[in-house]
Amino acid sequence: MRKLFTVLLVLLQLHVLAVGKKVTIDHIEPAFWWAGMQHPTLQVLVHGEAISDLMPSLSKEGVVLEEVIKVENPNYLFLNLRIDQAVQPGKFPIVFKRKGKEVFTYEYELKKRREGAASREGFSNKDIMYLITPDRFANGNPDNDSVEGMREGVDRSNPAGRHGGDIQGIIDQLDYIQAMGFTAIWVNPLLENNMEKYSYHGYATTDYYKIDPRFGTNDDYLRLSAEAKKRGIKLIMDQIENHCGSFHWWHDDLPTSNWYNFQDSKEVIYSSHNRISLADPYTSQSDLKMHSDGWFDTIMPDMNQRNPLVANYLIQNSIWWIEYADLGGVRQDTYAYPDAEFMAEWSKRIMKEYPSFNIVGEEWTKNPAIVSRWQKGKVNKNGYTSYLPSLMDFPIQETLIEVLNKETEPWKSTFSDVYEMLSNDFLYPDPYNLVVFADNHDTPRLYNAVHENKALFKMGLVYLFSVRGIPQIYYGTEIMMSGDVNNPKDHSTLRVDMPGGWAGDTSDAFKGKGLSDDAKEAQQLIKKLANFRKNTTALQDGKLMHFVPRDEIYVMFRYDSKTKVMSIFNKKTDTMEVELKRYQEQLEGITKGKDVVTGKVYDLSKGTISLEGTSALMLVLE
Amino acid sequence: MRKLFTVLLVLLQLHVLAVGKKVTIDHIEPAFWWAGMQHPTLQVLVHGEAISDLMPSLSKEGVVLEEVIKVENPNYLFLNLRIDQAVQPGKFPIVFKRKGKEVFTYEYELKKRREGAASREGFSNKDIMYLITPDRFANGNPDNDSVEGMREGVDRSNPAGRHGGDIQGIIDQLDYIQAMGFTAIWVNPLLENNMEKYSYHGYATTDYYKIDPRFGTNDDYLRLSAEAKKRGIKLIMDQIENHCGSFHWWHDDLPTSNWYNFQDSKEVIYSSHNRISLADPYTSQSDLKMHSDGWFDTIMPDMNQRNPLVANYLIQNSIWWIEYADLGGVRQDTYAYPDAEFMAEWSKRIMKEYPSFNIVGEEWTKNPAIVSRWQKGKVNKNGYTSYLPSLMDFPIQETLIEVLNKETEPWKSTFSDVYEMLSNDFLYPDPYNLVVFADNHDTPRLYNAVHENKALFKMGLVYLFSVRGIPQIYYGTEIMMSGDVNNPKDHSTLRVDMPGGWAGDTSDAFKGKGLSDDAKEAQQLIKKLANFRKNTTALQDGKLMHFVPRDEIYVMFRYDSKTKVMSIFNKKTDTMEVELKRYQEQLEGITKGKDVVTGKVYDLSKGTISLEGTSALMLVLE
Repeated sequence: MRKLFTVLLVLLQLHVLAVGKKVTIDHIEPAFWWAGMQHPTLQVLVHGEAISDLMPSLSKEGVVLEEVIKVENPNYLFLNLRIDQAVQPGKFPIVFKRKGKEVFTYEYELKKRREGAASREGFSNKDIMYLITPDRFANGNPDNDSVEGMREGVDRSNPAGRHGGDIQGIIDQLDYIQAMGFTAIWVNPLLENNMEKYSYHGYATTDYYKIDPRFGTNDDYLRLSAEAKKRGIKLIMDQIENHCGSFHWWHDDLPTSNWYNFQDSKEVIYSSHNRISLADPYTSQSDLKMHSDGWFDTIMPDMNQRNPLVANYLIQNSIWWIEYADLGGVRQDTYAYPDAEFMAEWSKRIMKEYPSFNIVGEEWTKNPAIVSRWQKGKVNKNGYTSYLPSLMDFPIQETLIEVLNKETEPWKSTFSDVYEMLSNDFLYPDPYNLVVFADNHDTPRLYNAVHENKALFKMGLVYLFSVRGIPQIYYGTEIMMSGDVNNPKDHSTLRVDMPGGWAGDTSDAFKGKGLSDDAKEAQQLIKKLANFRKNTTALQDGKLMHFVPRDEIYVMFRYDSKTKVMSIFNKKTDTMEVELKRYQEQLEGITKGKDVVTGKVYDLSKGTISLEGTSALMLVLE
Repeated sequence: MRKLFTVLLVLLQLHVLAVGKKVTIDHIEPAFWWAGMQHPTLQVLVHGEAISDLMPSLSKEGVVLEEVIKVENPNYLFLNLRIDQAVQPGKFPIVFKRKGKEVFTYEYELKKRREGAASREGFSNKDIMYLITPDRFANGNPDNDSVEGMREGVDRSNPAGRHGGDIQGIIDQLDYIQAMGFTAIWVNPLLENNMEKYSYHGYATTDYYKIDPRFGTNDDYLRLSAEAKKRGIKLIMDQIENHCGSFHWWHDDLPTSNWYNFQDSKEVIYSSHNRISLADPYTSQSDLKMHSDGWFDTIMPDMNQRNPLVANYLIQNSIWWIEYADLGGVRQDTYAYPDAEFMAEWSKRIMKEYPSFNIVGEEWTKNPAIVSRWQKGKVNKNGYTSYLPSLMDFPIQETLIEVLNKETEPWKSTFSDVYEMLSNDFLYPDPYNLVVFADNHDTPRLYNAVHENKALFKMGLVYLFSVRGIPQIYYGTEIMMSGDVNNPKDHSTLRVDMPGGWAGDTSDAFKGKGLSDDAKEAQQLIKKLANFRKNTTALQDGKLMHFVPRDEIYVMFRYDSKTKVMSIFNKKTDTMEVELKRYQEQLEGITKGKDVVTGKVYDLSKGTISLEGTSALMLVLE
């Protein structure tokens, strides 16, 4: 008996009756692949009761079934296919036999790749990234707020519950996002996350090949990608190699006894979160193991990527989504937690498949020596070779917030700290490919972080749009969204709903209705800065020069052959007459500067510029 | 007319009458050199009124006067000699002629080098360094307390004045130093420092070739070196390339208009002290210049080492002292302030001349990424190649003090900060060659820094003797010397006189008389630790392994094929029963540990060890 597969994805259930015995195939992953990929092999996981009794075979020009791997659990087979790069796209049967007799056949497909798929361009410093927590952004399809069979339904009254935001909501607001000047969206995880609680955040995947139905379908995700692309917006997927969720379909029927780390431990062994062990020349083996192999959370089993079957599974899954959803980037969660050698291989494989792609990893530390160890091109003393192109710039983020909040001192300008942190860029092979941000889904909101000081908030934003790297704005920050002042790190309050994303919302950030004047002003500021940066190469890959902060004045230039931009920060509360002589090596021949935000033109020929207290100015120089 | 030079050194005044015209030679530097040096050239500075009128010549096998350089100031000549490495030691005349007629002759000497001079061993992690501020250590020769012609005389009642300590005082206490277990002495500058005020600190050199007569003579310095060597103690000279003192003999008759940086400035341009500019990929040229070329102090002219005559002068001077005084090391002041390319050349020249030598540089920052940039072997992004073997470990020093003072917290062990700082050692090409210290002549005294908490003081010392590197103890710290509690950074109070160094002192640290019980205990602690370390290779170049601090317990192992040492730090105020299971990878087969300080033997076979609150234990394991 034979069944044709027409569904795009995987949560297939094959009930096959053959020779009087019922065979159930629960999962074939990946369910399809593409012709013409760079990597020559593909490993297909087949999961079904007693599936290892069967022997698969196939016949297709350019495809060889090199190996069939049986594991401890008889419900799994792993099929190693070698695929010629010149293979023709198309379907071909994989025939599963018992004692020489066909039990059933799976119609595998090698799809035709999109034009230019391999040469896709990842996000870069040409882009401005907008980070969206999808459950909290916009509810485009109220029908999928609660879905039968999913453990958690919608409950907007629960700050830690699901609020109903979804992919359709993001699609609906793409025009807004485009108008704001954002050219890339990083969306927190959208994959199935069928957990009992806190499922909205998405970081406990229960199916690696399926969009969570409360966010939409895989097709919706494709539409999001296509609609974004139409508007010049790249889609960046949030991926997690470190752990899955404990309700993942495989959790109660694991392929091997080492699919997870500490798999057989009676009690959960937690990660020590001691990431520095990976760099520490004096680390003990036990500390290393406790960091990398310990679990992130009771409900987040730690994947054992040293098992090559796990490694292959995860790498292929990442590539599958890039190819499938035409991605413009990947953001990798907790980059320092999975096996480090695996992460190198993961990045390497992706970047070999897509040489112009980009991946940004999360290494949450203020120490740039640690962050930089992960960037591609870094020569590490312990020999570790990384292939990760980009990292989140936590050192700048943390320092920027500190600097904004710091009291002015007579002996040292407060901006010195962020000036010095930026000077540490010599540690990075490519600082221009770091993602700079003031807040994200895990940190206090910028406006909270500066204790709701509007002037400091604006200074922070001007800094982000001035400095090298790829600016990232968290949804809602453009309207000065604020969490719980007393507990700004509380996830529930910093991830509140975007006004206007829900029917009946009294205010609407997308339409600019019902916003406070401050919120509108912030939105206009970001819109101006983002759109200016979008069209100004000097702010993208232009050179940077800054001057030692003095007297609470910090000055940074960005420049290329076309444009020169000067950003001035005054941390004093008093208006300052800034002497320009000190900046002569940049201001030679310059007579005026136009404020990017207000359009006001400043005469720079008189040797000084007046700058309000606690303010920042971004000037295009002429 | 001809005069034979028999004096060893330089402050010579040659009054030469020739053909009716008086010629005065004030300085010939260096006054002599050695045969068989590695570097093939020597540049001799000759200073005397209208000396450039004369033409020098010489005749000696293996020596060629390659060039005679005249500069703007007619009172100088620079003689470039090329010296064959196989040249025979001996004297030879340099004849100065006017219009072909001999005006006078200087008898130059190429001395015979000491046996093994080139292969001398510099200090290393085999050593324990004792830092002495000579004016404040011991007054061995009251006759030189005030010296005629020197601008500042003795005044022991003035905390910032000269107190009379001298070289003889150090020589007198070498037995004490040896008994304490110290194997190297770094003595703050001893060169002539003929300034009006604060001359005791020695950092404003007024003659690069002469010991300050208030400290003694050049011969005394030779004796110090020889007597120290007899006792297995290396002599480390404190050298300053960055600046001289404004009463240097050349100050009012500079050879060129670019002998100093900002030489012609009407007002003093001070250094911005912005050392990070040197590493900063985004630095402005003006910031770089302000840092490197600005003056350290009004009375400390900044030497322009980009002038090759200055560069040669300084390099030769350093080598001269190493060879002359049989040095076991150099400590270089403010390493990041002179021209960086010059410092590379300076280090390179010295290390080429003495391949097993050692030099430690001062780069005062808590940022190990910056400190490590200066260590030999570091591949720097901006291409800067350094040849400096060792650096003062300020990052560990600052962090250690912070950690000792930090209140214990429930969520993170206080020792985590120093643990993490040490983990940053991956930044250094050779962390085992860093000098570790808790205090020096510029920082608060350790006992002050921990707010006179004896237990914390002792923990700090056990840490210093446990960690990798070369421990350095500041004189007086061994008797818990304390400065002004309210102003511990005040130089005057942290550099107080060592009791027993002056006739009539009521207590005597050297003889252990009149000391408080606490002081005696501290002295015994350091003596035990130093002498143990001196004989224990595991603490010198043995491997290091440490464990993530947990519950305020931090454990570090040092081990080689001969010995294993375990240091345990308990930052809690309560006695802790430390579970040993966590350290199994080091404790395999170990049954007992002997306290290095008390000799007490601990049974480790029972799986725990009891550790008093706020204490540290160094155990030799068996």
